[in-house]
Amino acid sequence: MKIQKLASLSSAERAEILARGGEVSAKIKTGVAEILQAVETRGEQAILEFTQKFDGADLNNLELSADELAAVDESADEFDFLRQAAANIEKFHQNQLQNILQEKRVETEDGVEVWREWRAIQKVGIYAPGGLATYPSSVLMQAIPARIAGCSEIVLATPPKKDGSLDSVVIAAAKIVGVTKIIKCGGAQAIGALYYVYGVEKLTGPGNPWVTEAKTQLSSKVAIDMPAGPSEILILADDSAVPKFVAADLLSQAEHAADSSSILVTMSEKLAEEVETELGKQLADLGRKEIAEKSSKHILVAENLDEAIGFANEYAPEHLEICTEEPEAVLKQIVNVGSVFLGNYSSEPAGDFATGANHVLPTAGFAKNFAPLSVESFGKKIQVQKLSKAGLGKICEVCEKFGAAEGLDAHAKSISIRFEDEN
Amino acid sequence: MKIQKLASLSSAERAEILARGGEVSAKIKTGVAEILQAVETRGEQAILEFTQKFDGADLNNLELSADELAAVDESADEFDFLRQAAANIEKFHQNQLQNILQEKRVETEDGVEVWREWRAIQKVGIYAPGGLATYPSSVLMQAIPARIAGCSEIVLATPPKKDGSLDSVVIAAAKIVGVTKIIKCGGAQAIGALYYVYGVEKLTGPGNPWVTEAKTQLSSKVAIDMPAGPSEILILADDSAVPKFVAADLLSQAEHAADSSSILVTMSEKLAEEVETELGKQLADLGRKEIAEKSSKHILVAENLDEAIGFANEYAPEHLEICTEEPEAVLKQIVNVGSVFLGNYSSEPAGDFATGANHVLPTAGFAKNFAPLSVESFGKKIQVQKLSKAGLGKICEVCEKFGAAEGLDAHAKSISIRFEDEN
Repeated sequence: MKIQKLASLSSAERAEILARGGEVSAKIKTGVAEILQAVETRGEQAILEFTQKFDGADLNNLELSADELAAVDESADEFDFLRQAAANIEKFHQNQLQNILQEKRVETEDGVEVWREWRAIQKVGIYAPGGLATYPSSVLMQAIPARIAGCSEIVLATPPKKDGSLDSVVIAAAKIVGVTKIIKCGGAQAIGALYYVYGVEKLTGPGNPWVTEAKTQLSSKVAIDMPAGPSEILILADDSAVPKFVAADLLSQAEHAADSSSILVTMSEKLAEEVETELGKQLADLGRKEIAEKSSKHILVAENLDEAIGFANEYAPEHLEICTEEPEAVLKQIVNVGSVFLGNYSSEPAGDFATGANHVLPTAGFAKNFAPLSVESFGKKIQVQKLSKAGLGKICEVCEKFGAAEGLDAHAKSISIRFEDEN
Repeated sequence: MKIQKLASLSSAERAEILARGGEVSAKIKTGVAEILQAVETRGEQAILEFTQKFDGADLNNLELSADELAAVDESADEFDFLRQAAANIEKFHQNQLQNILQEKRVETEDGVEVWREWRAIQKVGIYAPGGLATYPSSVLMQAIPARIAGCSEIVLATPPKKDGSLDSVVIAAAKIVGVTKIIKCGGAQAIGALYYVYGVEKLTGPGNPWVTEAKTQLSSKVAIDMPAGPSEILILADDSAVPKFVAADLLSQAEHAADSSSILVTMSEKLAEEVETELGKQLADLGRKEIAEKSSKHILVAENLDEAIGFANEYAPEHLEICTEEPEAVLKQIVNVGSVFLGNYSSEPAGDFATGANHVLPTAGFAKNFAPLSVESFGKKIQVQKLSKAGLGKICEVCEKFGAAEGLDAHAKSISIRFEDEN
């Protein structure tokens, strides 16, 4: 890997590093539209056919059966790690709900009370990738905030193995966190199933480009969490960083997929060189070496901290590690990011699994305008207004003037009619 | 207008009342795609051409000039009503920010601190409809929460009159609330302008089907607030309601556009009949009588309060007035709604302008899964994690087990490497 000076990048080189994700291919767009159309018109039968075609699993029934569910004893010791992670995720997200519920009422004028109240989205559909690998952590990260939000139905879709089964760890995770139904399907057909067959009101979760495109295509009909693409990390470091930790964390994102991105931005040429050496060493030992080798990796040297921070904000990384002398001071200047890790012992993979923070995060620059998945993702604050006659009287004239300015006669009238008998 | 029993509606009749909005026509989809394509490739020139074509205004420059801006004295007495409304909107939304900023830090394990911090979306684009009518209230409802959120650039797009000017009330509203730039264009081309020419990171605001479709088509590239369609009100009332108030409020939504919806659901046949009579009387006097006559209006009689509440939740109204003996008790059972008005003096139009609550709300059933526009719409809570070495040690084993379960070797390694020297 070449070490490059941030300031010497051509605008084309800089644009190439900043651009991730890119346009969805016409093939995926058309393919997804066809799958969704089939699921809309033919329902479960179409989904089972796609599951046979894409996952190689021959199923009679989309839903995990009561027997399959009962066969996994989620209280077994082997699942203690799920429980410990779930407890941390629970703490972090319960704190969000407490904050949500603490919003006060406001009296904007005497007799005009205005406030917001929390209401859960009733039916939500969550997606966990699967097939070859299995992602129990993604089940926890979605179902826990959904349950805390108060959703009454949480439908999990995840693709089966070729033999039609689901991994017992995934089933255990779903049972531990209160998923109400599990369906065995993946890809665009799973997104179609959640919306057309199960009628969910919001779709969440990470997935491959087919899953993301299916969510996008349905987003004029149903709420979705965010566009979420390949994983990425940016590490902003100075000489206080430990080269072998930095290299290990860059590789932890690089192993996700060949389209993942890992970037080190540092003010220290010495660190840049040491990390480069470490990367070579550590890569040799990795189980997923081939994937990690293919993914995009950059070491960029900044002239000063401001330049590094400016680049980080422009990149808007999903994950940002700040390994500098004073990480909290740097954090204050970071505006575009999903999840931040401060200091040498806040290793990004810890946040993927067990710090309690959510790992469903905006990627590809969407950290500029989307937040991490949270309790807020599974509900909404509705507005409430309560006016006394005197309170309405205080804003009567204002409303009449707006009614006149906007040509909305009946608007003004519905307020003045309440005072008519007094004239 | 026919009074109907809710329980006797055929499923087709019920479905027809519940269905609003419906599918966007192919003509609009194609037309919008062409406009966005033109704006992407030809920029300002294309926008000016569309403005001539659709708004009949011949402009040389998209942006409101410094002279036009200076010509409006927003401190004039005639704009006091804007200031009073803005002060109320400010109070309600400042309260949201205070709540957002009060979220606590959590220590999920000893040495594992996790929290969220607020960051504004930097550049936002807000849309206010215009042309024939003019909507200064929509400027306040978007720019105030954006400014409170901390957005550094707030670009307002609104269509000009035929003579190329903007209404002075709209300009005054924009100046009062700190809009940073005003562009004179409307429709799909305005949405294209905000994204392609001004590079905003989020698009908000109500509009006609062209505006909404343009936001939808761009929603895989940029964040949008919500799909927002024709206005609607549902009034849930018992005998404690005042028929002429109810009729006036039903008409206040009916006058918006021919595709607006107004529904009364009541347990009282007497109220139903009295409201029907009042509607006839009041309609005759309305300035926008022809529009109000065309829009969809229903009076539905429910057998009991539970049936009425069930229907309200299924309908998921943008605006809900609860005019019953104990409105707060009913509110507890309402889950799907945008903005609620409690009691006989909480007239819905008061919330359109001056209670302080936001009037940009989900319609067409989207109140099931979208919230009213708020400070949260203009920013995001980023996640932060800070682990001590001991803290990381506490979750080391959990992370290793997830790494093993999910086949993510380098994930486990980046944690264990931090403890290597100790073995």
